[in-house]
Amino acid sequence: MTKLSIPQVDGFVEIAIYYLYEHLLFWYDKYKIVNAGGFGSYLFGMSSKVAGLTTELKDADNIKDPKLGWMIGFMFVVSFLGLFSLVPLRKIMIIDYKLMYPSGTATAYLINGFHTAQGEKLAKKQVWLLGKCFIGSFFWGFFQWFYTGGDDCGFSSFPTLGLKAFQHKFFFDFSSTYVGVGMICPYLVNISVLLGGILSWGIMWPLVENQKGNWFPADISASSLHGLQGYKIFIAIAMILGDGVYNFVKVILKTSMSFVAAYRKRSTGTLPVSEDDQPDIDPSVTYDDEKRTEIFLKDQIPQWVAYAGYIAVAIISIITLPHIFPPLKWYYVLVTYIFAPILAFCNAYGCGLTDWSLASNYGKLAIFVIGAWAGSSDGGVLAGLAACGVMMSIVSTASDLMQDFKTGYLTLASPRSMFISQILGTSMGCVIGPCVFWLFYKAFSDVGEEASEYPAPYGIIYRNMAILGVQGFGSLPKHCLTLCYIFFALAIVVNFVRDMVGKKVARFIPIPMAMAIPFYLGPYFAIDMCIGSLILFVWEKVNKPKADSFGPAVASGLICGDGIWSLPQAFLALAKVKPPICMKFLSRSMNVKVDDFLSRS
Amino acid sequence: MTKLSIPQVDGFVEIAIYYLYEHLLFWYDKYKIVNAGGFGSYLFGMSSKVAGLTTELKDADNIKDPKLGWMIGFMFVVSFLGLFSLVPLRKIMIIDYKLMYPSGTATAYLINGFHTAQGEKLAKKQVWLLGKCFIGSFFWGFFQWFYTGGDDCGFSSFPTLGLKAFQHKFFFDFSSTYVGVGMICPYLVNISVLLGGILSWGIMWPLVENQKGNWFPADISASSLHGLQGYKIFIAIAMILGDGVYNFVKVILKTSMSFVAAYRKRSTGTLPVSEDDQPDIDPSVTYDDEKRTEIFLKDQIPQWVAYAGYIAVAIISIITLPHIFPPLKWYYVLVTYIFAPILAFCNAYGCGLTDWSLASNYGKLAIFVIGAWAGSSDGGVLAGLAACGVMMSIVSTASDLMQDFKTGYLTLASPRSMFISQILGTSMGCVIGPCVFWLFYKAFSDVGEEASEYPAPYGIIYRNMAILGVQGFGSLPKHCLTLCYIFFALAIVVNFVRDMVGKKVARFIPIPMAMAIPFYLGPYFAIDMCIGSLILFVWEKVNKPKADSFGPAVASGLICGDGIWSLPQAFLALAKVKPPICMKFLSRSMNVKVDDFLSRS
Repeated sequence: MTKLSIPQVDGFVEIAIYYLYEHLLFWYDKYKIVNAGGFGSYLFGMSSKVAGLTTELKDADNIKDPKLGWMIGFMFVVSFLGLFSLVPLRKIMIIDYKLMYPSGTATAYLINGFHTAQGEKLAKKQVWLLGKCFIGSFFWGFFQWFYTGGDDCGFSSFPTLGLKAFQHKFFFDFSSTYVGVGMICPYLVNISVLLGGILSWGIMWPLVENQKGNWFPADISASSLHGLQGYKIFIAIAMILGDGVYNFVKVILKTSMSFVAAYRKRSTGTLPVSEDDQPDIDPSVTYDDEKRTEIFLKDQIPQWVAYAGYIAVAIISIITLPHIFPPLKWYYVLVTYIFAPILAFCNAYGCGLTDWSLASNYGKLAIFVIGAWAGSSDGGVLAGLAACGVMMSIVSTASDLMQDFKTGYLTLASPRSMFISQILGTSMGCVIGPCVFWLFYKAFSDVGEEASEYPAPYGIIYRNMAILGVQGFGSLPKHCLTLCYIFFALAIVVNFVRDMVGKKVARFIPIPMAMAIPFYLGPYFAIDMCIGSLILFVWEKVNKPKADSFGPAVASGLICGDGIWSLPQAFLALAKVKPPICMKFLSRSMNVKVDDFLSRS
Repeated sequence: MTKLSIPQVDGFVEIAIYYLYEHLLFWYDKYKIVNAGGFGSYLFGMSSKVAGLTTELKDADNIKDPKLGWMIGFMFVVSFLGLFSLVPLRKIMIIDYKLMYPSGTATAYLINGFHTAQGEKLAKKQVWLLGKCFIGSFFWGFFQWFYTGGDDCGFSSFPTLGLKAFQHKFFFDFSSTYVGVGMICPYLVNISVLLGGILSWGIMWPLVENQKGNWFPADISASSLHGLQGYKIFIAIAMILGDGVYNFVKVILKTSMSFVAAYRKRSTGTLPVSEDDQPDIDPSVTYDDEKRTEIFLKDQIPQWVAYAGYIAVAIISIITLPHIFPPLKWYYVLVTYIFAPILAFCNAYGCGLTDWSLASNYGKLAIFVIGAWAGSSDGGVLAGLAACGVMMSIVSTASDLMQDFKTGYLTLASPRSMFISQILGTSMGCVIGPCVFWLFYKAFSDVGEEASEYPAPYGIIYRNMAILGVQGFGSLPKHCLTLCYIFFALAIVVNFVRDMVGKKVARFIPIPMAMAIPFYLGPYFAIDMCIGSLILFVWEKVNKPKADSFGPAVASGLICGDGIWSLPQAFLALAKVKPPICMKFLSRSMNVKVDDFLSRS
């Protein structure tokens, strides 16, 4: 019998480690949330405090101040939908599409590393290398921290390719996470991301920027959806949706056909297992992978649990949500829940390719669509913000869950126990999250004010988006919608071509989903990822067997080390220990002025 | 017969490469010289332009304006002394003391690398690795350049250990040269340098600084020898002199004893070769080393050439110099020439250990001693500056020559042809140097003025030193002389102990010469060197045979790559291409002010 080179993690140990990792980071996220995440953005945007800072639509209909009770209730009725929405598709995403979920893969390597005490020699070496990269990456993160004593300070603002390129977000930001991600992702994904970055930030946005005053008002703020930001967000979403819808439809068609085939076979007396449920016989599949697939498929979560769960939670929240937010009519919620699985699929698919969850972008889409539907007269601002919360919660939970399924698949953890642990974790999050926010909100009366310790700039940005949203799609800048249609169609066409031409040619056609990610974020992380690719490429040229054996270990070490560093970083931030130095980058002429200023003061 | 793993470089090719390397860098040095080197310092300090910027001693006796004629003459009568002064001691320094001369060693590896086309497999691998490190180091230098668009900008001002440590010059400055030097130097040297840095910049200078206003006036400029700078320079020189004199005396004693022994043997009929001329039989000496020693000793430069040359040039310049600089009496020159070989030995010895030539420090000593002797009434300032030029020229030529002898030794080049090529090179330098300076001086009438393109701050600093010098040793800050005596004695005692206790214990006793180098320069390069040591140490732990075979190749690549980068850098500077970005390091509080200033302007 072929030997299994990975240990089978027993449920308890695995879940314990997993919980440790997830919940340590959870606290950091909560801290971030106060500043920039969900609570700081849409929830805070509803408050009278933020409404007071804007000029329009400050009526009572459009305001809902934070209260612990309704926040916990809201979290409970929206968070679980994400869990149920994608469970039925997990086999397709993890096994058939072989999506990488780089963070999930890295976590799995880390967890497997803890279990190789009696493993073979190669595995020990891998763990040892992973450990070294982990420590290196951790301390690199620590070192970087010291130089971030201010805005735009430190290595993450290093104009590696020059100041001009930096303004267009072309730079290497020394993030070991994304170098690791680049080592895990296939070359095609990295190249696609880079091409997308060049197409958008290198060509399109500068061209659109040139139309300032023509396509959109020149005096608009940088974060307004009426300006360049609008093109960035909506074109990115259009392209992602094009790709996502194509793949979603393809999956649905394939699944239904296999059901039909199974039904026919059953009626003719053959076994009731569909052909598609059998792993493809692929010579490159190792014994490890076979075993993984077996375990992943053995311990099924029954499909009816997923469908029933989704429908049950949906009904509950369709009833509950309009009570919490009166302007959010029940049919808005219903429509949201009909489209949410598609968006969740898009997000989970994109995240599987590039490790980026673009939940906030889907949230902005919801603000816009629901806000426009509700209109300005009927509390559309509040409806938009509430819909944003619902959508963000669903799509981010879905991508997190799929990330975790990937980890479970690689660590041979039972998907059922993974799912149950997710339900437990999500429940805890629904209580702890609002509590932490509430604590900050009550303890520091100036939370959200500009000069305070905890400013919430996103609250104002989100509310402003909602205010624009109620004006409908007509308020988008010129040609934005046309461009959206073009990119939506382009994504479908490219995918179709990729499926038609066969694998040999498809290797050279970029993936639209991956191309769209940097449209909004900027190409800097694409450069990180391509550097990861380059490292792996050179390594493979020099010593292919070694690169194949140790590449994932190095990548996992890089990703996890940087990830764990977030934890002490969070504690430092909570303890108000600030980094002492700012590493600043100035143009030569600006430096002359600054030196002059410093010598005078 | 054992195979020789290094190629025997034929005279012509070797000299050609050597000339290329040396003379390319030569032009860069010339450029630097205009700004900071010899011409910008002591020669310019003599001019009426600089004298006009000071307040005292501006009489005609103390002024000599640059003229092409006397400058070339002056260079000719002083430059060759350095060449002759140490030739007789080269066997002792290169073979007996096994001094490393890291730059010379690196150059030798580079030159040997060009000749291994038909060499063995290991040698090819070494060359390949050297090439990679060379290219890496070159592009690292290039990359660093972009971020140096201002004073105190870029990686060489990176407060790697924090801002507080940076103020005391404790930081890693990302210099690949000194990391490479650290890999070539023995551990003991690197540790000694670091200990010296901690002792001086970590303990002594802060303590002395605390006595500001007590030991020396509080309102004194940072570069004044009356203040902290005085302690730094004179204590460093005292310690170096202590070590140098000890070793010089030891060498002289040993040599004379071997002469006596040889004389006795000859008179009793045995062969006239002294025992000391035979290489010690040391089991660790490889066949390569034996061959090197054989060739190095075979092609002797007759001792009488060295002595006769030294005396002849000395006589010429004793006669000539007082004509050029009337206040520089012939007996000052005579005394200078009596002590110069000792100082040249000290400098060449220190340079062999740590790669630093401290020529400017010996020059400052000469300013002080001769200036004090001449006194203020008889043009002591001019005498001091002239003596400085003489001394700097001798000691720097001597260390350069020894560095080159090391290269020649390792490349199996004939020492005689090395010496001849040095004489040719020096002659060229004597003409080209003053001409370049003259060109700048005439072409840009504002050379040396503070706001001009070519300011010469060192001219003023050197003249001020000379003005202080004429006031005699009494003008040194309090306790400075006492501390000098202590450190002079300490250096002798430590050396004596090192010789007494035997090699096993001596390995753990730091070398005073190496300790003294960072007294003046600061410990930053000690940290670079220790990082080089650390890399080698870890490498040896992981894979000793590999580290032994490839360590010097990596180090040479690092040193030479960075060195060659100086060349395009010089061209960029001459073409007035300035780096575009300043990477600046500000404390958090300062950054707030700067951000505020930037947002206002």
